[in-house]
Amino acid sequence: GGSTLAGAPAPLGATALPDGGVNLAVATPSRGVSIVLWSEDALIGGRGNAKPSAEHELSPEEHRTGDVWHCRLTADMLKKGNYSYYGWRVTEPDGPRPPAAPPAPPGPPPVLVDPRAPGVGTAARPEFGDVASEAEGGLWPQMAGVLPVGAATVELPEFDWEGTRPPRHAREDLVVYEAHVRGLTALRQTEEGDAKAGTYAAVKDALPHLAFLGVNALELLPIYEFNEVEHYKLLDNGTTRLNFWGYSTLSFFAPMARYSSGDGALTALREMQEMVRECHRLGIEVILDVVFNHTAEGNEMGPSVTFRGLDERSYYVMAPAGEHYNYSGCGNTFNCNTPLARQFVLDCLRFWAIECRVDGFRFDLASILTRSSTRWDGESAYGSVVTGGHSGHGGDGDGRPAAAAEYGGGVYTGTPLGAPPLVEAISRDPALAHVKLFAEPWDAGGLYQVGSFPCGQRWAEWNGKFRDDVRRFLLLPGGGGAISDFAKRMCGSPDLYPGDRGPKASLNFVTCHDGFTTADLTAFNERHNMANGENNRDGEEHNLSWNCGEEGPTKNVEVRRMRARNRRNLMAALLLAHGTPMINMGDEINHTKGGNNNTYCWDTDVNYLPWDVLVSAGSRGNDARAMLRFTAGMVAFRKSKACLRGRNFPGHDQIEWHGDFAGQPDWEDTSELCAFRLFEEGGGDVYVAFNAGGVARTLELPHLGGGMRWDVVADTGAEAPFDFLRSDLLQDDFMNAGVPLVGARREAIAEFGHVRVLKHSCVVLEAVPHNSHELATDEPAYI
Amino acid sequence: GGSTLAGAPAPLGATALPDGGVNLAVATPSRGVSIVLWSEDALIGGRGNAKPSAEHELSPEEHRTGDVWHCRLTADMLKKGNYSYYGWRVTEPDGPRPPAAPPAPPGPPPVLVDPRAPGVGTAARPEFGDVASEAEGGLWPQMAGVLPVGAATVELPEFDWEGTRPPRHAREDLVVYEAHVRGLTALRQTEEGDAKAGTYAAVKDALPHLAFLGVNALELLPIYEFNEVEHYKLLDNGTTRLNFWGYSTLSFFAPMARYSSGDGALTALREMQEMVRECHRLGIEVILDVVFNHTAEGNEMGPSVTFRGLDERSYYVMAPAGEHYNYSGCGNTFNCNTPLARQFVLDCLRFWAIECRVDGFRFDLASILTRSSTRWDGESAYGSVVTGGHSGHGGDGDGRPAAAAEYGGGVYTGTPLGAPPLVEAISRDPALAHVKLFAEPWDAGGLYQVGSFPCGQRWAEWNGKFRDDVRRFLLLPGGGGAISDFAKRMCGSPDLYPGDRGPKASLNFVTCHDGFTTADLTAFNERHNMANGENNRDGEEHNLSWNCGEEGPTKNVEVRRMRARNRRNLMAALLLAHGTPMINMGDEINHTKGGNNNTYCWDTDVNYLPWDVLVSAGSRGNDARAMLRFTAGMVAFRKSKACLRGRNFPGHDQIEWHGDFAGQPDWEDTSELCAFRLFEEGGGDVYVAFNAGGVARTLELPHLGGGMRWDVVADTGAEAPFDFLRSDLLQDDFMNAGVPLVGARREAIAEFGHVRVLKHSCVVLEAVPHNSHELATDEPAYI
Repeated sequence: GGSTLAGAPAPLGATALPDGGVNLAVATPSRGVSIVLWSEDALIGGRGNAKPSAEHELSPEEHRTGDVWHCRLTADMLKKGNYSYYGWRVTEPDGPRPPAAPPAPPGPPPVLVDPRAPGVGTAARPEFGDVASEAEGGLWPQMAGVLPVGAATVELPEFDWEGTRPPRHAREDLVVYEAHVRGLTALRQTEEGDAKAGTYAAVKDALPHLAFLGVNALELLPIYEFNEVEHYKLLDNGTTRLNFWGYSTLSFFAPMARYSSGDGALTALREMQEMVRECHRLGIEVILDVVFNHTAEGNEMGPSVTFRGLDERSYYVMAPAGEHYNYSGCGNTFNCNTPLARQFVLDCLRFWAIECRVDGFRFDLASILTRSSTRWDGESAYGSVVTGGHSGHGGDGDGRPAAAAEYGGGVYTGTPLGAPPLVEAISRDPALAHVKLFAEPWDAGGLYQVGSFPCGQRWAEWNGKFRDDVRRFLLLPGGGGAISDFAKRMCGSPDLYPGDRGPKASLNFVTCHDGFTTADLTAFNERHNMANGENNRDGEEHNLSWNCGEEGPTKNVEVRRMRARNRRNLMAALLLAHGTPMINMGDEINHTKGGNNNTYCWDTDVNYLPWDVLVSAGSRGNDARAMLRFTAGMVAFRKSKACLRGRNFPGHDQIEWHGDFAGQPDWEDTSELCAFRLFEEGGGDVYVAFNAGGVARTLELPHLGGGMRWDVVADTGAEAPFDFLRSDLLQDDFMNAGVPLVGARREAIAEFGHVRVLKHSCVVLEAVPHNSHELATDEPAYI
Repeated sequence: GGSTLAGAPAPLGATALPDGGVNLAVATPSRGVSIVLWSEDALIGGRGNAKPSAEHELSPEEHRTGDVWHCRLTADMLKKGNYSYYGWRVTEPDGPRPPAAPPAPPGPPPVLVDPRAPGVGTAARPEFGDVASEAEGGLWPQMAGVLPVGAATVELPEFDWEGTRPPRHAREDLVVYEAHVRGLTALRQTEEGDAKAGTYAAVKDALPHLAFLGVNALELLPIYEFNEVEHYKLLDNGTTRLNFWGYSTLSFFAPMARYSSGDGALTALREMQEMVRECHRLGIEVILDVVFNHTAEGNEMGPSVTFRGLDERSYYVMAPAGEHYNYSGCGNTFNCNTPLARQFVLDCLRFWAIECRVDGFRFDLASILTRSSTRWDGESAYGSVVTGGHSGHGGDGDGRPAAAAEYGGGVYTGTPLGAPPLVEAISRDPALAHVKLFAEPWDAGGLYQVGSFPCGQRWAEWNGKFRDDVRRFLLLPGGGGAISDFAKRMCGSPDLYPGDRGPKASLNFVTCHDGFTTADLTAFNERHNMANGENNRDGEEHNLSWNCGEEGPTKNVEVRRMRARNRRNLMAALLLAHGTPMINMGDEINHTKGGNNNTYCWDTDVNYLPWDVLVSAGSRGNDARAMLRFTAGMVAFRKSKACLRGRNFPGHDQIEWHGDFAGQPDWEDTSELCAFRLFEEGGGDVYVAFNAGGVARTLELPHLGGGMRWDVVADTGAEAPFDFLRSDLLQDDFMNAGVPLVGARREAIAEFGHVRVLKHSCVVLEAVPHNSHELATDEPAYI
């Protein structure tokens, strides 16, 4: 030791210095710490045997300020050692191991990844899911932070945004597309010069598809460094199970290195920035799905990879003996309302928002951010830990005794706070004021905050009730008794977001990565998760789905037609409702996961977007292209109508409810019809009718004065291209053969002042001047 | 506009870039901002007419990220314009002026000081209190932040700490000296080469005095930039009133420029660092008195100098119409629990702790840090402001209607929080883990938290009850009925700090900058504050003081002797008690403020340490030197005895209570005697007896076995040098003429097993081996 300079305690993490050196600083109350250095060869080339190139014990006098350990590596040192990666080793912890933890494994303590490393290198695993190296590196191979500069690493110049600007769409104008970097791009047809499949760079090649669809925000499943082999299991049937989705973060400042097409951990950061730049160039915002509710380190039996070894009790919600609370359902709970964790999350968000120009964040199990911490509690505020007695919200569901440590003012560990300091800090941070915030407003500990997420002025919520109520009304028999709830969801959920929150607080979705796809929602009554290796016990049990008569694949044309109709209904409900719609990747082309509603583990076609259907022959290709056209059409129609995207809930002047007869809605629980008219300022009102029942109906249309008539925009009861008739709104209508027939249908409606809505279908009309559109003579057969 | 580069939103403030440029960033939700630049000549030379050298309107597209405005000045720009100072001008605020605020003054909006400026330059006032320039610059002359580098400013090299290390004394070993930079040094005799009086640099010349005294921590009254002319008033008697103390901060990252001996605002920072370094070299820690409870901007009628113009509602606790809450008694209240203010305070503390190696902070009116904010409240968490109804703790004492804005979970504006996020963040910050934290645990809004300041494991409290109870017992007739409280204070206040907090939570003091000096406490029954110009209504009314028979100066020798005896009693109580003692500057040499107990405004001898008494002839000089010797002796004795500095409260094994007879204490309210023995591990027990009554007593001493006898250490009833007899503990006993007599007194005590305690005096004995110390034959007359 002793050959490193003292360095400075701020900023935390690795900081490039103007002289070519690097300052390193990490917060840990440990009493002995050493800095560990690797060359690229030693770490990456070392594979299962990644011995450090150098290690220096730091002196508490020189290298410690408060609970921050720090040192400075000179350019000379870096060059001489050819160092590219670093880590910290705690040689003397600040206290004994918690009683609940197993004995320390033999050998020296592990080298820990710096929580603020801007990139992570992983010994023994250059490629995503490379389980071949398992024998060498283990499920937890040595990982290390990348040094931002140094002789062995090319210094990155300031990133060139090439004059692009973040789109900054209004929240009510957003149409979100939820995707997974690898899932989106793994099957992307490669042309000459295309980027490597499964990478940030390949996302660029997927953007024209998104642009055609008309979405203007891309929400990415976790892209922070995770260990995709964490859940690795070789199943009986010979398949391997991984952590594909990535909801198990290892390093929050580091873009997932194995989503990078190049070598070197810093390349990932650059490619991530390039991806954002190319999205912005097309007017598409980038939203990151971030997982601050737990980490990859598991419960008290888990490995020490980063946080645990540095300051376990500050980063995790723990009982006095060291057991981890499990509000996340994933073994541990990030201790969001300790000052250290708060600052960490805030700095992390700033990094991604400022350095990578990320436009928004979706917080996984965000309710955990509202829970009070352990840490102050007994230990600090009151002198000794209070045990027994109250269980508060502290039960972890494992039958473990709830440790009730009192928090200032009578708040117990895990109690949801009225004004959680972290949520407040995120909401009010000046550097994040432009950033869109989405909460998944619940957690796995039973906290459900749909409609009540704190600091709600700044936050939209994943509206789980939208998902459930739309499914109930459209898929369950007799409208599921959900007419009233469905109507509220179509209005942006005024029951959930009253006052100033408004429809913009509602992130509407019917399907997402978790659960059935839209195709499966209309083809399966039950989950089919046997392949996951947990005897079909995992995944959501109550899916509110309808197989339309047969379970799974079928050759029955009637069943298939009904499924298609319901797919369109669900998509129409999503895109016609007030609030911000989110489309699940693949639903626009009928992607099926074969009835598996919990596909976190599959690095296979199950989770890959099937690009081939866009060009393949046969009914699968045709159906996929039809759905794509319908979806793109509905997105375009939404964008063309301000009355579908109000900042406020539609009031009496903006909405009018109808039924079989105009102005006579049926609000009985048995109702299967939801029809309404939205008034568009300046003309062009919209009429929508969902018939959730099994019988076709003829509805009286509301009167239109002033030389206007109702014209059909969409009819989900019809097959493409008659399901969406505003070809003019599509960038490129590859089914325009149907257009001559369209006019006739329109004329029929205009003549009779009524509209026919087939069973399980939806019509969308638009008020147009009488003289608009050409007329044709034939009528389609299906009226 | 447009000629500045975009810059980056992080870090906030002014940051020197490796290429010689500067990045500037400020948090404000304003819709229009310009950056204003000055050359040294334009700002400082401009005096009352300090016109900017340049001003650039920033573009919201280029220069705004969220609510952070930023720009980058190139080295070329800086050089070309010769710019040394900068400020921000809000050209378009984010909303209308609050209804309660007066109309905006005519002319362009003011240039605002960056809250994170590392130094402040002030047009028209190079010297402290230069009121001659008042006509030119007004009471609020133009102030501006200093640019950290630039062509016109010499770039400061990394500060050289010359191998010094922060002392890191244990909290129980600390002896604090509270002083004011200008007050300490204004009258410092200058020798050839001495620093300019009144500056950080001059503090170095005062350090030998502190070293002789034996104190190991220097607590400085506010040294953050303030406007000393803020309260300027020319009084009827021709004197001028200033803000001398400085409890009215203008810029929290900038050391007070007019405490600097050199030119250029950055020189102040360097001199401040040098001061800390020289303290550390002598083993003296530096503690800053920081004022985060309010700022210099006053209430809604006050000027816009920095925070108000940038984001008034985030930085201040305000009612909906814009009135300021006044928990500080100074017009406004810093909104400590908004995220912006929290981050600001935290970053500020880190700056001083890391860059300036400050060892601790004393938080003025710290209870304000525990109060809930306005801001979220109605506006954000609940959609609209709740008014009327509850007043909670919200009354500001001005008869103004209390605006009751609800905070999450039913907390109203200003309610003390059980786990205030700011206090928690400070307490747990890794970079501040080594820093000592002292709370003044009350505020001017009626909140009194002595014994209950949150997160108390990390915090010591200014123990106001120590001050009061010691005064009551020693100065009020009949021991003030305070025997029991006095005994608790001597033990470190176990009633206030039970459990793990212990004596280290108690910052003991009898006097401080605010209120009577020790000399005045024993010479005045009433305050004498007429000179302050408020008809003697200002300042504390209840002083628990005793003039010893005559009010104010007297020639009566008996009265003067009694005063001296009481001065020694008060100092002895302070230095013999468990906890951390703090000595008020000047009390060690009998400094008087002539009975004025609220001298915040006097830049005169009233607040200057009278260095001349250390060398002057006559009784004033003699008395001062005697008190200095006694104080230094008692400090040294304290340091020599672990039993006076326990980490824990003395238990039954550590303390034994006595009275006229050994083992028979008198705990009646009428008791005037407090006597106890502390057991010193390894021998050398201490016996202490305070006789607060007007009659001398003879006390039976507890038995000492094992060849030990009681020996006298101090007797406050005796005149110097007989008041302190352990000459051997003093670095240099300039009164050693008295030593031959000492032995005789010791022998007398040893013989009889009793000790005589004169009226209003205290004896301190020590157990020593029988054969220690030489014996003499005579006995002093006073036994």
